[in-house]
Amino acid sequence: MPAPRIDLNADCGESLAAWSMDGDEAILSVVTSANVACGFHAGDPTVARRTCTAAAAHGVAVGAQVSYDDLKGFGRRFIAVPRTELADQLVYQIGALQALARASGTEVGYVKPHGALYNAIVHHEEHAAAVVDAVRDVDPELALLVLPGSEIERRAREAGLRTVREAFADRGYTPQATLVPRTEPGAVLHDPQAIAERVVRMALEGVVEAADGSLVAVDAQSICVHGDTPGAVAIAERVRAALQEAGVELGSFL
Amino acid sequence: MPAPRIDLNADCGESLAAWSMDGDEAILSVVTSANVACGFHAGDPTVARRTCTAAAAHGVAVGAQVSYDDLKGFGRRFIAVPRTELADQLVYQIGALQALARASGTEVGYVKPHGALYNAIVHHEEHAAAVVDAVRDVDPELALLVLPGSEIERRAREAGLRTVREAFADRGYTPQATLVPRTEPGAVLHDPQAIAERVVRMALEGVVEAADGSLVAVDAQSICVHGDTPGAVAIAERVRAALQEAGVELGSFL
Amino acid sequence: MPAPRIDLNADCGESLAAWSMDGDEAILSVVTSANVACGFHAGDPTVARRTCTAAAAHGVAVGAQVSYDDLKGFGRRFIAVPRTELADQLVYQIGALQALARASGTEVGYVKPHGALYNAIVHHEEHAAAVVDAVRDVDPELALLVLPGSEIERRAREAGLRTVREAFADRGYTPQATLVPRTEPGAVLHDPQAIAERVVRMALEGVVEAADGSLVAVDAQSICVHGDTPGAVAIAERVRAALQEAGVELGSFL
Amino acid sequence: MPAPRIDLNADCGESLAAWSMDGDEAILSVVTSANVACGFHAGDPTVARRTCTAAAAHGVAVGAQVSYDDLKGFGRRFIAVPRTELADQLVYQIGALQALARASGTEVGYVKPHGALYNAIVHHEEHAAAVVDAVRDVDPELALLVLPGSEIERRAREAGLRTVREAFADRGYTPQATLVPRTEPGAVLHDPQAIAERVVRMALEGVVEAADGSLVAVDAQSICVHGDTPGAVAIAERVRAALQEAGVELGSFL
Repeated sequence: MPAPRIDLNADCGESLAAWSMDGDEAILSVVTSANVACGFHAGDPTVARRTCTAAAAHGVAVGAQVSYDDLKGFGRRFIAVPRTELADQLVYQIGALQALARASGTEVGYVKPHGALYNAIVHHEEHAAAVVDAVRDVDPELALLVLPGSEIERRAREAGLRTVREAFADRGYTPQATLVPRTEPGAVLHDPQAIAERVVRMALEGVVEAADGSLVAVDAQSICVHGDTPGAVAIAERVRAALQEAGVELGSFL
Repeated sequence: MPAPRIDLNADCGESLAAWSMDGDEAILSVVTSANVACGFHAGDPTVARRTCTAAAAHGVAVGAQVSYDDLKGFGRRFIAVPRTELADQLVYQIGALQALARASGTEVGYVKPHGALYNAIVHHEEHAAAVVDAVRDVDPELALLVLPGSEIERRAREAGLRTVREAFADRGYTPQATLVPRTEPGAVLHDPQAIAERVVRMALEGVVEAADGSLVAVDAQSICVHGDTPGAVAIAERVRAALQEAGVELGSFL
Repeated sequence: MPAPRIDLNADCGESLAAWSMDGDEAILSVVTSANVACGFHAGDPTVARRTCTAAAAHGVAVGAQVSYDDLKGFGRRFIAVPRTELADQLVYQIGALQALARASGTEVGYVKPHGALYNAIVHHEEHAAAVVDAVRDVDPELALLVLPGSEIERRAREAGLRTVREAFADRGYTPQATLVPRTEPGAVLHDPQAIAERVVRMALEGVVEAADGSLVAVDAQSICVHGDTPGAVAIAERVRAALQEAGVELGSFL
Repeated sequence: MPAPRIDLNADCGESLAAWSMDGDEAILSVVTSANVACGFHAGDPTVARRTCTAAAAHGVAVGAQVSYDDLKGFGRRFIAVPRTELADQLVYQIGALQALARASGTEVGYVKPHGALYNAIVHHEEHAAAVVDAVRDVDPELALLVLPGSEIERRAREAGLRTVREAFADRGYTPQATLVPRTEPGAVLHDPQAIAERVVRMALEGVVEAADGSLVAVDAQSICVHGDTPGAVAIAERVRAALQEAGVELGSFL
């Protein structure tokens, strides 16, 4: 029986000009996939290129972390943009990062929507369709990180795209296997040891303990460890160590 | 003896949101190369894609019209950005347009710097070097439209890039074959017939009449007909017709 | 009995850099109130100041045409920004225009929300509250142009602000006195003569013919004549002439 | 004989969206004047308002920290913008901050140019003139923080504006009393104790030790303690304590 294997992904390249996002580069020595910001919610061409270069040096896979056009809101605000315009914006972002990645000796292997866009396409049909359109237009071989059971997963599969299911290391789950909303208690976990144990269980048993104590199935090929919260790098390191101790192989899904 | 042959290029895709740039699409039925704005001085992903699609439909070659990051100044202001940052911004723009062009059934074949950047790299060593770096990083096969005798031409050739010399249909020339500065009289010509005759002479004889009446050599493979001045389309049509009457073949330099 | 009196308002100052919005200055010789863009959906400091100066020269009142922060979308996209952040953005815009207006020899007398924000606050409680907060924070004496019967009208009155009801010269009305949505036929009228007659009836009788032919009451102190559609200036001139022929006095509501 | 008195100023409100600038609020408990970013190089309406509110709570004077329009470059890049356009941009920024300051229970008392603009107007005549134009247009009573001996100081005095000379706590000085360029050794000092002693000497004796060991005169009414370098708050606290121990009274120049 082969060793269980999982990918760890984190948001990277989210600094901008004089503003640095903590842990942005340190996380690259922990994860196996880097979601590199494309300049629409964070990052700029120089930050993106530096991040791609660092990812290449660490042997970390590069994904395009695409967003609504919302630099002043860090991509956290829903923007009611028409489907075709959104698709064009996503093609633009992926293409820009592809060129920077190639110039850095690596390449874009997957796409991960960011922030408000990520949340919207769990349900929003038009915007989910725009993401599918964009990936297909740029390169149908690109993988797409998705929340299991989401509208975007359904549509992307229907379109023949390669979807990769992800789970969240530090987020609470409901008994229905959805994330506890950030406005509710238990939405975000902070104890590194508890988080590490959850992730090991996700990887080995495919389950997570929900907020009510019940066990729910999470079928994930990639675990998202956040890069932009204080202590995030330390938590990610603990997760990585725990997975390795448990015999789980770490590696990109590409 | 083969028929003389020349390319006509014009700036395109310079609309933005609710603002349309006059003649933006009409010019595509006249020129053989379209300098498509990449969103840094004008254009947005939707405008750029629409322009690429229209260019493909007209059989017009597509170039990346790259700029300083200056949407609020239409790229007309010099920005003192370091060489590596400028190069990264240019890689970003070219990559973004490549993806949009491919999604539109065409591809980016060349690069043309815009506005203040175009003017700067006639002399500015660091910024000229940045343009060369960017083209080489993205794809050394891309052609680069240059002003004859400029710093950018010298450096691009030295780097082994393919340079394409351009002349300007409606600009006055000094006896030294440089352009009459816009602040001086005779900088811009307006008479369609006179412009058409100048361009025919450029194409057939390789000369243009300078401001002092002397003839100066212009060795151009492409003629820039502006797209954003009133009457520009009519002038471009007259230029095209005059060239065809004179037996000059029109076609992209690619 | 005094002559009936009404205000004509139009959007102005919506050019940007090299992009000009047609009729932007010509409309100032027709209207009595100018809704000057504040740089968040259109306009820039130089355009705004030039427009204020022109408005002052024409004796036209100046209002702050405030918007979501959406220059790339011309303010036509809803943005899910929190109430306090939106209020801060509106305070910022009004304050910026106040300084430019004073430097131009005039002053900001009222506020008119633009585009998606205007539409949102017909119903959206949080964003309507943000507009009220902002006006009160900057200067509770500022008037606020509102759609009759809207959430923003209700809240602004409750807060003791001065509201000014407006009707639209070229928009179709439903039998319930709301605007025919732009996605439906009859949303926008184009015949200058018909538009002029509607406006005269609004001013003299306080009614407008709805899409089904019924007469509905419109109690407006100001009529919006659009500035950014082709032929808008000609329509506005016809409206103005018709009102004057009918003995309606034209003047700002300030 | 009255106690010597001096002002301490620092840059504040330079966070943006999800990016926080270290020490941004902590510095308000140390300084007597806060240079609040106006959104053109850093800050946004919400950050600016929060900073004004905090400044008011600490009894700290508020100044408009104006910049070139360069959010992506943190205002550190020279932009070749025409004089009138720059002046309009500065009026816009000051006006926006005035409204936010008033809404926060305080007011803008002075103006301090930021970054590349600050450096440019030491020599650049057109841009120095633009700063003077803008202050005069908004409110000729506003004070203006200037580098002693600069073009902006000369022009502002000529125009009858109130100029306030500033010195820099942590910057090296040449024997000619100019700042050691950042590209040279000794440009920035890091030892808190040495910095504190320099500032005390500036305040009591009006001199500073230059890079060559000679003493040069610095006639400053305000000392700039930086807010955006690591350890900046600790240094500023040491400076404040040293000044107080030496019997120097701290207070705004307003």
